[in-house]
Amino acid sequence: MRRPDGEPVSGDFAVEERPLPSVGEGQLLVRNLYMSVDPSMRGRLERTEKHYTHNFTPGSPLDGRALGVVEESRCSSVPAGAFVRHQLGWRERAVLDVADTDGADRIDPRLAPLPTWLGLLGQTGFTAYVGLTGIAALHPGDTVFVSAAAGAVGTAAGQFARLLGADRVIGTAGGPDKCALLVKEFGYDAAADYRAEPVREALARLAPEGIDVYFDNVGGEQLAAALHALRTGGRVALCGMMSQFGGERRPVDINQLIQAVLKRLTLRGFIVRDHEDLRPEFEQRVADWLTDGRITARETVVDGLENAAGALLSLLGGGNVGKMLVRLGDSD
Amino acid sequence: MRRPDGEPVSGDFAVEERPLPSVGEGQLLVRNLYMSVDPSMRGRLERTEKHYTHNFTPGSPLDGRALGVVEESRCSSVPAGAFVRHQLGWRERAVLDVADTDGADRIDPRLAPLPTWLGLLGQTGFTAYVGLTGIAALHPGDTVFVSAAAGAVGTAAGQFARLLGADRVIGTAGGPDKCALLVKEFGYDAAADYRAEPVREALARLAPEGIDVYFDNVGGEQLAAALHALRTGGRVALCGMMSQFGGERRPVDINQLIQAVLKRLTLRGFIVRDHEDLRPEFEQRVADWLTDGRITARETVVDGLENAAGALLSLLGGGNVGKMLVRLGDSD
Repeated sequence: MRRPDGEPVSGDFAVEERPLPSVGEGQLLVRNLYMSVDPSMRGRLERTEKHYTHNFTPGSPLDGRALGVVEESRCSSVPAGAFVRHQLGWRERAVLDVADTDGADRIDPRLAPLPTWLGLLGQTGFTAYVGLTGIAALHPGDTVFVSAAAGAVGTAAGQFARLLGADRVIGTAGGPDKCALLVKEFGYDAAADYRAEPVREALARLAPEGIDVYFDNVGGEQLAAALHALRTGGRVALCGMMSQFGGERRPVDINQLIQAVLKRLTLRGFIVRDHEDLRPEFEQRVADWLTDGRITARETVVDGLENAAGALLSLLGGGNVGKMLVRLGDSD
Repeated sequence: MRRPDGEPVSGDFAVEERPLPSVGEGQLLVRNLYMSVDPSMRGRLERTEKHYTHNFTPGSPLDGRALGVVEESRCSSVPAGAFVRHQLGWRERAVLDVADTDGADRIDPRLAPLPTWLGLLGQTGFTAYVGLTGIAALHPGDTVFVSAAAGAVGTAAGQFARLLGADRVIGTAGGPDKCALLVKEFGYDAAADYRAEPVREALARLAPEGIDVYFDNVGGEQLAAALHALRTGGRVALCGMMSQFGGERRPVDINQLIQAVLKRLTLRGFIVRDHEDLRPEFEQRVADWLTDGRITARETVVDGLENAAGALLSLLGGGNVGKMLVRLGDSD
């Protein structure tokens, strides 16, 4: 196998059989039921090493968040039949070390459906929560703008922002159907199609008095537009820059950051795993909101490991609404 | 008079005689002795209005920080002969309202020489202090990088960073002479000539283990280089972006901010006047440092109002070391 040269294509991926290691003391054999497909995987296909994760290695399995059922346990705290969330997705079965950080996190399937544990109640929802609260310091009454609003993090961020007291929530997405869904299902007051209208004009139209918080998933033109729309003292949570992977994109000048000087803006990049201190309040609040029916969990589910690479490519092309998951085997 | 079309030239400025208003109750007639020439004036020549100040109007006098002596007082708290700092520079005499914010700030010429009150002890030094402490949260042991390090704010920032406990202070400036001065006089451990070497390479050479704080005066390529050099948790104080005015500059892509995500960086723009709460500690510390001979006040002084426009153009071209001032009349 080779590393993708620029945009990944389906020929860059293959399903292969590999022997499983035997299950040692303190380990679990898990059959995966769902696995998470994340935009951050795009960066991990690149050659350049990141500071916060490892990149994928050609010829070795991918990995990522998954949820499975324990088939065999050699660990007294996690019995066979339990459901665990872990990092060894992109395979049907995995042997996990319970003692590892992120090794296996047992979840209660009575509290929420299994997919939700990878979506609104998982890293996806937690990313939206941390970005809004810990990074952008959302205040009640704020006007909030979210890009890639129809994606997994965006659909969570819009709903959370509303429930956390935002006065007005605006999102951008690709295409009129997604925009309609944002308003209908995901707590957005207004949405704009970034393919149909310059985002700077859309923000001037939808938030004529400016925005206070920008949850950035894309960078580029939308970040620049937000810098112009932000009010004095505005905050930007920098969560990812998917537009960095768009080949023919016209670059946006970094000196648009002069807006940050003129308006005393704060921009903060974050990686969700630095903020585990916020997880208890996150789980409590989101579980309550789910129980009360105040938020909508929405997943785009693809069946079968053989379709997983296609699911990733579809995600990177914007083919999902909400969380993109692959369902493995006879999960239901 | 017309507004400059792009880069200002000397023909855009003129010295004119205008009648002075009479001195009313609560007002002072001040003869200006020194006036400050600031990079921020460049932006005020543009047509686009800023959020934090007013732009200059063609045909009307410029304004800016100045220091003068009271010739006539109709205010009991400020006698004739007192020295006051105020906003009505770019003229030889001014009538000031003492009750106005920034109307007239009386200074004690025994504590420091007059030019220092516009430099290290003035907005210039205060800008450096606020950026390092209030914005970038400088910790003892940090490695600090300052761009435009030979300028007024940069020469203050290097020295302050050192005295505030920075482990290593690195600066960039234009040309070998300025770089030599940074190390010799202004507390810098090392300096790089941004015209002679890509700043990203200079930082890799001078701070191979990375930097913790970047005090940004220029934006553009130097900001991008700093984003790459910053360590996890690094902080950027965004003070100004002089490179926005460089016509033929190659734009730098805003998506270099992906570094802020990967390394959880914080970038904060600031305007010094939002931070008056820090002024008492600033004045106390800098006055002590001056008294102890631990810092060097350095000014580039030009004589005469007729040479003031030239001083501004020289500043914009990098012709100064330290604070750029115009001396008016027989100040000494």
